[in-house]
Amino acid sequence: MTTVREPKQDRSRATRLRLLEATIDCLAESGWSATTVADVAERAGVSRGAAQHHFPVREDLITAALEFMFDSRMTTAMDAAKSAGASAARKTETVISELVEYFTGPMFKAALQVWTAAAADPALKERIVPLEAKFGRTAHRLTIDALGVDDSDPATHQLVQATLDLARGLGLADVLTDDSARRKKIVRRWAATLDTALKPKP
Amino acid sequence: MTTVREPKQDRSRATRLRLLEATIDCLAESGWSATTVADVAERAGVSRGAAQHHFPVREDLITAALEFMFDSRMTTAMDAAKSAGASAARKTETVISELVEYFTGPMFKAALQVWTAAAADPALKERIVPLEAKFGRTAHRLTIDALGVDDSDPATHQLVQATLDLARGLGLADVLTDDSARRKKIVRRWAATLDTALKPKP
Repeated sequence: MTTVREPKQDRSRATRLRLLEATIDCLAESGWSATTVADVAERAGVSRGAAQHHFPVREDLITAALEFMFDSRMTTAMDAAKSAGASAARKTETVISELVEYFTGPMFKAALQVWTAAAADPALKERIVPLEAKFGRTAHRLTIDALGVDDSDPATHQLVQATLDLARGLGLADVLTDDSARRKKIVRRWAATLDTALKPKP
Repeated sequence: MTTVREPKQDRSRATRLRLLEATIDCLAESGWSATTVADVAERAGVSRGAAQHHFPVREDLITAALEFMFDSRMTTAMDAAKSAGASAARKTETVISELVEYFTGPMFKAALQVWTAAAADPALKERIVPLEAKFGRTAHRLTIDALGVDDSDPATHQLVQATLDLARGLGLADVLTDDSARRKKIVRRWAATLDTALKPKP
């Protein structure tokens, strides 16, 4: 089946995507209170009216941005780890590096602004909690898949969970200062420790 | 040498302490933007004038609160771990549990509000960065001491750093929901893994 190209719909989709990307950058760089629909529209080069047509309420824009960008960036990170790790001897280190790369990028910094605002805002919290649960499940599944380990083993499951918690902690340590030199050593050490712990006992 | 008791100075010190404690609670529960000197004074039951006498500027109050409460609570946590762990077989698990307890308490939730605000506020960031470095060093030193391990060994140093990053990540996972059930399993698993990793090779 062929579909007729619809330029108007394409334009609308492109505008939406520009708004979602600008929301993440705006949150990561300017913080929660400086991220309104008007601020994001300006950053994206979209008229305020068009932005409000797509996202009448600020919370809609922010949750849509988190959801879309999380899926796209986390999948990209783990795909990169898988294609790099396939031939590499140090697969675990490659996967953890990509994971930590994600958690120190704009997506995590943006999410941190929203999570922190939600801690003191019950209505926002209600929207964010299911999103957090979904992100947690997806990140776990993609990491298990990239590492190629068996999640039905409780020790493996818990160590992969711990690795995600570590990545989140390393993300937080990078919010105010460039923590990359210290982080590199931690990732290498954690990867070696995880490799030993995940190795089937003889 | 005996000192004459100075009731007025005692009262002033008590007021200051009440303000510092109220600042942490206010940040943790109501967030950054709802934590002004006036809000904290009201919560502490101190007149606005008296609060402003102690802390003319909001940033002074907040950094003083973080500094004082961090020292007091982190030391308490690690002292608890040491006295509990002295006779316990599972010293590592006790120390990590206390550490994680600290990172899921009001002190971490308060600090998170300040760190996140500082990410988008260069003047605040300048005040917070040295504090973050100091907290990191102190937490590391107290953890090394409580575990009774040798920090001059690079692997040990990095694994204790990773443990602190993990604790920070677990703290973040507890901001919006009660994550204690999952956390307990992670702590136990990491303690066992860390114990094996720190054991001198035969």
